[in-house]
Amino acid sequence: MPILYHLPFDPFSRKVRIILAEKQFEAELVTEQPWLKRQEFLHINPAGEVPVLHEPGKLALSPSQVIAEYLEETLTKVPLLPSHPAARAEIRRLCAWFDRKFHEEVTSRLVGEKLSRHLTGRTEPDSARIRTGYTNIDLHLSYINLLAEERNWLGGNQFSLADISAAAHLSCLDYLGDVPWHDHLDAKNWYSRVKSRPSFQSLLRDVIPGQRPPPHYADIDF
Amino acid sequence: MPILYHLPFDPFSRKVRIILAEKQFEAELVTEQPWLKRQEFLHINPAGEVPVLHEPGKLALSPSQVIAEYLEETLTKVPLLPSHPAARAEIRRLCAWFDRKFHEEVTSRLVGEKLSRHLTGRTEPDSARIRTGYTNIDLHLSYINLLAEERNWLGGNQFSLADISAAAHLSCLDYLGDVPWHDHLDAKNWYSRVKSRPSFQSLLRDVIPGQRPPPHYADIDF
Repeated sequence: MPILYHLPFDPFSRKVRIILAEKQFEAELVTEQPWLKRQEFLHINPAGEVPVLHEPGKLALSPSQVIAEYLEETLTKVPLLPSHPAARAEIRRLCAWFDRKFHEEVTSRLVGEKLSRHLTGRTEPDSARIRTGYTNIDLHLSYINLLAEERNWLGGNQFSLADISAAAHLSCLDYLGDVPWHDHLDAKNWYSRVKSRPSFQSLLRDVIPGQRPPPHYADIDF
Repeated sequence: MPILYHLPFDPFSRKVRIILAEKQFEAELVTEQPWLKRQEFLHINPAGEVPVLHEPGKLALSPSQVIAEYLEETLTKVPLLPSHPAARAEIRRLCAWFDRKFHEEVTSRLVGEKLSRHLTGRTEPDSARIRTGYTNIDLHLSYINLLAEERNWLGGNQFSLADISAAAHLSCLDYLGDVPWHDHLDAKNWYSRVKSRPSFQSLLRDVIPGQRPPPHYADIDF
């Protein structure tokens, strides 16, 4: 069985877990702590990052968007990209937005710092980065709100990789109680719809020992 | 005619220029200084970054890899990705490697700091970042050398988006004379083959006023 090397609260790993569940593709989850620089893991992925989808003796796929494109091309029964090139480009633009811009401006500052022990092996959070993360999340939620107001799903009419990329990040932030949902109701309703999908349920069961999520975290009708 | 908003020494803009030339797709080049935060430009691309490929009244494509995938899907005559999903994934992995890891560890530290006035509007380079950039480029060139030794092109048998992504970054660094080619001969020979392609020639004619490139920069048989 293929192996997904992952970290439970890494948004990129969560993105791939949701895609695998949507496409009903089974893989064994193996937790990898990349900061330990395990030689066998570096051999599989010289970039030294999770997630990696590995079929031993065959493929080693990474990073998350490359895994997404591969699964899209090989498991076509549940499409997560539409067929028209322009519509595909808009969804890929949003994937890049969340994986790069949102990650740099929000997730890495809040989740990355607060869970640094769980995500990077470091122990000292940087409080200045956390402060800017709080300012930035508000701006980003306004953008998500705007997209959710105008469209059925973030990337267009259909549930797609754009929703998955965004929700993967937000689910990590939501575990920390860091998402000001009450100021962004369209974004909240959109997230509630994503969260209620069967593909999301295993994520909501992950826990960090000694750190409980807020009561609404796993509540679908929050 | 479609417009490519770009910066001459931005590696991501260069990547798209090479792709457009390979696919013989004409676009008007318009220099955009993203740090000026021009409202019309932010309206086209809310991320506020170059490159953007814009067909007025129609599409606005960004960032560079999304433009690449779109052009790959719509202009199929000159393919820059192979047909097998696993081979495509390997090339996309390398695109992500250069666009993210190489950019973060090398290009942003050397080109980004030294040409900061041309790329970000800032004037003060950060010398500590420049120092780590020099350490990192050596490690990355060893990796390119390894790939060039084992394969005809970086991503496999065919010239592909992997070669274009890598060469776009290296061409900016090479203008500054920052690439220690002599220690990495397979990498040098590979780059020489990329540089001699017709699609590369317009890049080699770009100049920064008051800053000349080393003599080998535009010399194909360097």
